[in-house]
Amino acid sequence: MTFDLKSYLDARRTLVDAALDRVLPSEDLVPVNLHRAMRYSVLAPGKRLRPTLVIAGAEAVGGAAESVLDTACALELIHAYSLIHDDLPAMDDDDYRRGRLTNHKVFGEAMAILAGDALLTLAFRLIANNTARLPDPRAIARVVAEVADAAGTDGMVGGQVVDIESEGKDVGTDTLEYIHRHKTAALIRVSLTAGATLAGGGAEQVATIRRAGEALGLAFQIVDDILDVEGNLAELGKTAGSDVRKKKATYPAYHGLEASKRQASMLIGETKRYLEPLGPSAEPIRALADFVLERRS
Amino acid sequence: MTFDLKSYLDARRTLVDAALDRVLPSEDLVPVNLHRAMRYSVLAPGKRLRPTLVIAGAEAVGGAAESVLDTACALELIHAYSLIHDDLPAMDDDDYRRGRLTNHKVFGEAMAILAGDALLTLAFRLIANNTARLPDPRAIARVVAEVADAAGTDGMVGGQVVDIESEGKDVGTDTLEYIHRHKTAALIRVSLTAGATLAGGGAEQVATIRRAGEALGLAFQIVDDILDVEGNLAELGKTAGSDVRKKKATYPAYHGLEASKRQASMLIGETKRYLEPLGPSAEPIRALADFVLERRS
Repeated sequence: MTFDLKSYLDARRTLVDAALDRVLPSEDLVPVNLHRAMRYSVLAPGKRLRPTLVIAGAEAVGGAAESVLDTACALELIHAYSLIHDDLPAMDDDDYRRGRLTNHKVFGEAMAILAGDALLTLAFRLIANNTARLPDPRAIARVVAEVADAAGTDGMVGGQVVDIESEGKDVGTDTLEYIHRHKTAALIRVSLTAGATLAGGGAEQVATIRRAGEALGLAFQIVDDILDVEGNLAELGKTAGSDVRKKKATYPAYHGLEASKRQASMLIGETKRYLEPLGPSAEPIRALADFVLERRS
Repeated sequence: MTFDLKSYLDARRTLVDAALDRVLPSEDLVPVNLHRAMRYSVLAPGKRLRPTLVIAGAEAVGGAAESVLDTACALELIHAYSLIHDDLPAMDDDDYRRGRLTNHKVFGEAMAILAGDALLTLAFRLIANNTARLPDPRAIARVVAEVADAAGTDGMVGGQVVDIESEGKDVGTDTLEYIHRHKTAALIRVSLTAGATLAGGGAEQVATIRRAGEALGLAFQIVDDILDVEGNLAELGKTAGSDVRKKKATYPAYHGLEASKRQASMLIGETKRYLEPLGPSAEPIRALADFVLERRS
């Protein structure tokens, strides 16, 4: 029997989309424009990769999707906030994302900044809320700490700063790896470990999943870089090659397309090897790893 | 024996300043400019009112300052992040704050946005870290939730949105009160309750402190509005009357200066009445309430 990834992803996406709609403040409530701006970016069609990884992380240690839904939403909110702020005129200055106007083009810069702030804040609110059906209440503090580490100066924000500072410069492969590990891989990795920790995973299980998550996160970013070179507007919703135009540090720019594809494939193999001790319960993570490698957008 | 507020404030400020220096990432670490930007705004000279309220909240229920220091720092970080983002060109567009250049004037807009993001993230990291000497580990999740509520859409960010949307408009006193309660009072209130909750305060004690904190927070904002009218550049470090120039909704603009002073004084009296059941242990909060009313900057 093979794992049916499409059914799995569709079911999880439906669950996550309903939960996101529920946890985001209503457009009927004051301040209406803030809530609209938050919902506009979060509820845009998307893969919901990070929330699905939270769920898969929980399932890998025997937990249920429903028991980590709040935290799954939290990771999507952090992802959405980072995109809103990255797109701002002072940062990447992008008008479109996946074919839709960026947040500040619709709601203005002030509202986009505040919507991002509010999403980051709500994310931690949701993790703290994730107390139902929890084997160990102390897991909440551990997950808040881990997610904050992955999203902060030694994680996503740190990676974004080095990315911006490297634009147009000839940086070394050390810097490229720093950016990839911090800007993208950290949040992918913590999505998996947050789910596993909340679902009561043991220290060794969580450490195994952390290693797999790190390899998966790096693979994800390399594939992103490849898609930026190969993709087109219809598939990615942004101008292909925008990283190249901005002289961003990317994997293909340093190692070429073919070597990049080999490296991504190698990292996905590594991800799966790390997961071997977990047996069949890690099948969703393995399938997600294939999805990360094979996706076209 | 009277409570010596000056010695109390000096001792707490010294403790908080040392802790802030310790919890902020070093300027020797990558990304250097991000860490510099974070430290520039947080370590600027200040009253440290919110951290001192966290400590006073803990002391009011028999806790020690040292046991809530991480969370005390967290509240100062949230305050600092909100000022950095409020000062941005897309928001209030201020070049100076308390006589120093604002964050984006020194580090640029992109770094100021990211420094704010990083401070908000680190704040939740610190609360999660506040596990030493904690009577009940589940208090962490409660405090993360309460602080997120006070800082998010139904708190500080919501207040800031309505404040921006009200500029130059003739809004009613309902809107004015919404802005005050959300933009400022919520964070003042939660500073007190976070300290009390972490230090093991009972539900009734925390509820009492919450009511006192709400009154204190409203008084604080009214005094702020009064100082904006009466203050001068030397004392406040910003052009006096800047709220008036921006046609911000302020208490004196609606009720006049004298009525504003009476209202602030009345709210401080209310704060103290709420605190009566707590007896002598709430003396630091009472003294801080007097400080809020009598401050000149």
